[in-house]
Amino acid sequence: MSPALRVGVVGVGIMGADHAERLARRTARAELVAVADPDEVRAKELASRHDGVWSTGDALELITSDEVDAVVLASPGFVHEEQVLACLAAGKPVLCEKPLTMDSESSLRVVRAEREATERFGRSLVQVGFMRRFDPEYARLRAVLTDGSLGRTLLLHNVHRNASVPNADFRSEMIVRDSLVHEVDVARFLFGEEVVAIQVLSPAPTSLAAEGVIDPQVAIFTMAGGGIVTNEVFVNSQVGYEVRCEAVAERGSVVIGRPSSGAYSTSLGTSGAGQWGGSVPADYRERFATAYDLEVQAWVDSVHAGTSVGPTAWDGYAATAVSTAGMASLASGERVTVDLVDPSTLAGPTTQTHHASSTKEPS
Amino acid sequence: MSPALRVGVVGVGIMGADHAERLARRTARAELVAVADPDEVRAKELASRHDGVWSTGDALELITSDEVDAVVLASPGFVHEEQVLACLAAGKPVLCEKPLTMDSESSLRVVRAEREATERFGRSLVQVGFMRRFDPEYARLRAVLTDGSLGRTLLLHNVHRNASVPNADFRSEMIVRDSLVHEVDVARFLFGEEVVAIQVLSPAPTSLAAEGVIDPQVAIFTMAGGGIVTNEVFVNSQVGYEVRCEAVAERGSVVIGRPSSGAYSTSLGTSGAGQWGGSVPADYRERFATAYDLEVQAWVDSVHAGTSVGPTAWDGYAATAVSTAGMASLASGERVTVDLVDPSTLAGPTTQTHHASSTKEPS
Amino acid sequence: MSPALRVGVVGVGIMGADHAERLARRTARAELVAVADPDEVRAKELASRHDGVWSTGDALELITSDEVDAVVLASPGFVHEEQVLACLAAGKPVLCEKPLTMDSESSLRVVRAEREATERFGRSLVQVGFMRRFDPEYARLRAVLTDGSLGRTLLLHNVHRNASVPNADFRSEMIVRDSLVHEVDVARFLFGEEVVAIQVLSPAPTSLAAEGVIDPQVAIFTMAGGGIVTNEVFVNSQVGYEVRCEAVAERGSVVIGRPSSGAYSTSLGTSGAGQWGGSVPADYRERFATAYDLEVQAWVDSVHAGTSVGPTAWDGYAATAVSTAGMASLASGERVTVDLVDPSTLAGPTTQTHHASSTKEPS
Amino acid sequence: MSPALRVGVVGVGIMGADHAERLARRTARAELVAVADPDEVRAKELASRHDGVWSTGDALELITSDEVDAVVLASPGFVHEEQVLACLAAGKPVLCEKPLTMDSESSLRVVRAEREATERFGRSLVQVGFMRRFDPEYARLRAVLTDGSLGRTLLLHNVHRNASVPNADFRSEMIVRDSLVHEVDVARFLFGEEVVAIQVLSPAPTSLAAEGVIDPQVAIFTMAGGGIVTNEVFVNSQVGYEVRCEAVAERGSVVIGRPSSGAYSTSLGTSGAGQWGGSVPADYRERFATAYDLEVQAWVDSVHAGTSVGPTAWDGYAATAVSTAGMASLASGERVTVDLVDPSTLAGPTTQTHHASSTKEPS
Repeated sequence: MSPALRVGVVGVGIMGADHAERLARRTARAELVAVADPDEVRAKELASRHDGVWSTGDALELITSDEVDAVVLASPGFVHEEQVLACLAAGKPVLCEKPLTMDSESSLRVVRAEREATERFGRSLVQVGFMRRFDPEYARLRAVLTDGSLGRTLLLHNVHRNASVPNADFRSEMIVRDSLVHEVDVARFLFGEEVVAIQVLSPAPTSLAAEGVIDPQVAIFTMAGGGIVTNEVFVNSQVGYEVRCEAVAERGSVVIGRPSSGAYSTSLGTSGAGQWGGSVPADYRERFATAYDLEVQAWVDSVHAGTSVGPTAWDGYAATAVSTAGMASLASGERVTVDLVDPSTLAGPTTQTHHASSTKEPS
Repeated sequence: MSPALRVGVVGVGIMGADHAERLARRTARAELVAVADPDEVRAKELASRHDGVWSTGDALELITSDEVDAVVLASPGFVHEEQVLACLAAGKPVLCEKPLTMDSESSLRVVRAEREATERFGRSLVQVGFMRRFDPEYARLRAVLTDGSLGRTLLLHNVHRNASVPNADFRSEMIVRDSLVHEVDVARFLFGEEVVAIQVLSPAPTSLAAEGVIDPQVAIFTMAGGGIVTNEVFVNSQVGYEVRCEAVAERGSVVIGRPSSGAYSTSLGTSGAGQWGGSVPADYRERFATAYDLEVQAWVDSVHAGTSVGPTAWDGYAATAVSTAGMASLASGERVTVDLVDPSTLAGPTTQTHHASSTKEPS
Repeated sequence: MSPALRVGVVGVGIMGADHAERLARRTARAELVAVADPDEVRAKELASRHDGVWSTGDALELITSDEVDAVVLASPGFVHEEQVLACLAAGKPVLCEKPLTMDSESSLRVVRAEREATERFGRSLVQVGFMRRFDPEYARLRAVLTDGSLGRTLLLHNVHRNASVPNADFRSEMIVRDSLVHEVDVARFLFGEEVVAIQVLSPAPTSLAAEGVIDPQVAIFTMAGGGIVTNEVFVNSQVGYEVRCEAVAERGSVVIGRPSSGAYSTSLGTSGAGQWGGSVPADYRERFATAYDLEVQAWVDSVHAGTSVGPTAWDGYAATAVSTAGMASLASGERVTVDLVDPSTLAGPTTQTHHASSTKEPS
Repeated sequence: MSPALRVGVVGVGIMGADHAERLARRTARAELVAVADPDEVRAKELASRHDGVWSTGDALELITSDEVDAVVLASPGFVHEEQVLACLAAGKPVLCEKPLTMDSESSLRVVRAEREATERFGRSLVQVGFMRRFDPEYARLRAVLTDGSLGRTLLLHNVHRNASVPNADFRSEMIVRDSLVHEVDVARFLFGEEVVAIQVLSPAPTSLAAEGVIDPQVAIFTMAGGGIVTNEVFVNSQVGYEVRCEAVAERGSVVIGRPSSGAYSTSLGTSGAGQWGGSVPADYRERFATAYDLEVQAWVDSVHAGTSVGPTAWDGYAATAVSTAGMASLASGERVTVDLVDPSTLAGPTTQTHHASSTKEPS
């Protein structure tokens, strides 16, 4: 048995602390060895909960440490570019939380650097944290759509709801950049094609969003092959975290993420009337707990195997490019075309794996 | 077009008033002409709500009236024998609410009288109000079980819950006689066989039933062909009216009556957590509204056609015989054999239609 | 009891024959007395199936006959204007199948004539056959949305699928005019507002539609108050008739029309793997059987009562105006504004009842 | 970080091979070091698939090896007693697949030995493989029942179906001993009480079971507090693996394991009619994959922590005692009382943890 992979986690907010706990307690063939956060007290506190884990306020110290074999980036998006490039320079595999970077230009720089590193180190080093590809329901949906039995995929209908978002400094564009981007990756993953245009519509907003915030939003994607994707994103739905996807193909449709799955109970409601039903997940950690576990385990396994799996730097770049176009559409109300660089013009080996179901078809 | 069937309703409690409204407003080719109830004020009040309907305190006056073509009996069970026999004497078709009578002996007397009347008038005159046979889900279930695709039926699992029952004078035996009797008819309808033995088990009762009342009860039926039926009857479930049936056959199973059918909503529960779900029917009138409508329309249609449809006097007798055995089992805890008279020893034409799906296969 | 309403049916294709059967067999306080169809043989054949029903090849003969109290129009849309106007001239209540007429101008003429007739006869005479308003699930959805508990309605997501349509002479616009028009009425019914703009998108079509037919289509409605409605209409889905609606409000969502309602079974699929599930309705008659029954009964009841209920001529006009704009949008790909006449400029009493749930709140 | 727990697996049939794979690939803080099986070729073949894993034909060699810290027993039930006792003698934690042993006497010997070992080594060493306690749905069900909101638990309804069993040498008693025993543990886990009596009923069997095999069976448990449990066990259902549990409490009910959870699709069935639905799990490995993963991880974690978690030797003994009574009832058709030794008469510390939800409340 090969020794456990020594992993460092950069950024120990909610997501990073969750990944640290996952690596320390639930991931086979890996061990958590270090954490980094500009808030050194927070980093130290987290490290102290695990035997033999050290902390630092300097992400680059962790990334370049000889005691760290691979890195999970759960830092804010605006420092991703610098940190991913540092990992590439050090030849270290990195699992980078979405978004890859804040705009298409910087994401494209990461793609170029990753191609050079792939040539130099003989393996792809970047996996982007679009964890839904590892969710058993999304993986199953992709398998059904690609096995051919239902014919060509024609439409997707996505619903993405959060109970609420913090009001301070929240802006309408963040719905596109931070929430809708998951639907962009889902569309690319399920169609196996790029998104070529996006239109973001602004309904009369809920009175329960912050003043001036357009919520919900309805976004329409056009896929390269002519498929259409409708998306509802509603981040102040009050109710809970609901992520649902229906694919419509030539000879049938498939729905995943119905709230009505799982246990249900009957009981007397407060109105005095009998009710049946169940609970809606509170947030993404509850809904996608298994997906995150499988994502991190698959990443650790792929590092051991010297292969790569899951969303690549290209996938991160393409999603960011659609978000960027989406933010322009939100402002104008018009349909905006997405311009991606031609991948064949990039040097180095292709790592464009958005067609691959990572759990089934590692590139 | 033949003239509308002139119908009188005997007994105008909840059930009778419901039938009167149904005949007056929602039944084709019928008209409500008279109502009878010992409580003459109540009868008069109901009559006044409909043009041209008269009332009486004397059920026999209504039954024998020349202005009444056919009778719906929604009176208490202990007067059914006398009233059904009066209908038979008058040669008038009667739809008698369940139970047919209060014990097997009296039910058998009705069966004998009905056979004589059938010979005399050339048609069967009695339909018993086991309305579930007309419920689209039960009818569909029977159709699936009898089309042969799933092989022989092996087991049924029935659940029958009421939110609550009036506590005054309620006794444990009434659960067997008034509630479980519906499951008896369902078992006979779906298996197309008689129930040959019954065992009623007494769990530790809910603290929310009246003192001394055994609720819930679990009853086990053995069918003539060896099939087994498990039944839960729980009349103080607090929640609502839930009637569910699962049939298990050699090559598959079918469930009807799931509470999770129909519309559902998501919303924030009072606990502050997101919920999905829907409402449980409050009572039998909500759950079986369509079944009652179809039952009464089918009865009216069959009277016009001079045929009969739905549960017969024999079906009423057989169900009562099982209930009677069930009450003995409730008292002793032991399995009790059901003794039915041999139908071939009865004079007159057979009207044993429990094999027939009334909506599909009028006898 | 008042005498039965004598109803004539114009047009005895699938829909008309269905209505004739309904009036003859399942509608209280009505009788079928006559049928008309240019195909006199077909009309005669239908009449012969019912006692005392006469037939004619001339719709106007039926409409003006003294033996006909009220008329159901199930003729093709292009003769609706003439026939509705004839009913109005004769002062006869008419239930007109959708669409009211083929374009907004002719529908507006009907609205104007209906207002004059309302003044002359003291009652509204036209009900348009948007039967979904009588479907128990849609009625329940509207009740939930209007009771205020979920706050303001923000979005609707409609899905409308047919297994297939006849290929001969089928054109893409017919999806807008004949299918999407139901979603238009649903949007108006649930929001209680007019549709002010429509955009119809053309995905890459299924290979199973006729050459040149754009199927599926995705349509976006903007409501007067800023709400947005997404619609999928797919008339060659192969599978069956699926009509689903999800409403998203400020504090919750509601879904109706899930295929997963009702009975389900488990069995061994042909692949040799175990399956659970149920059947999808084959067509609109199966899915909306109860809605049609309730619609026709409510119409008959309203005629007896001298009131009106359900969708009015205005509702028919407004829906047609949106369809007309939708066909323009299908051609151009652009968002098209819907121009309705200002109802306050119309003479006569308002009969604009699209806010009313007909089953609960007769106008 | 403490070194990984070195685990040996005894028995490498389907279950053992599954556990070996789990320990090697998906369990944190553990490593697979050795496998034993009387079929040495099979053991060697399995070992060769993992780096650094050795194999032996002698289970006792593995159990006593200094290189093995803890043992998973997936050998046949009739060698469990000897092997568990060997683990206890060696002071090694053991996860023993169910059944603990083949009859109550031998299980009781294990309980006594385990109590002595607990005193000697200062920790409980035996966990029995009732993996359902770790299934998220069963754990959630127990949490709901014990939080008090629904009042006292009154009834359980369990359904347990397998697609088929091998016919060779299959006997009716194996349904009780190998399948129903899971329901016994579920009843004890959810009620937190012992089963005091069992009755096993013999319906007319499916024609698809082997000659002479009684399948399905219906078993009734009486709990110490008077609760009643109905159980269907059907091991030749043809369809798939269905395990469902409904708990009925004083103020509500809860259902888990509905086949209708998860993704569903619509498509055209082979009959040419539209279908909706999904797939039924093929077997227990698919249905309980997560439960097994959580069970083994929790066991490894508890060994690291020096605590114990999950079903104890007592739980294994109690379940075996009920099975033994159940086999007697199957033969006689009568209700059979379960006689357990009084736990207070046993020497040593109590390890009776059937009240504990292992994932939430480690004892």
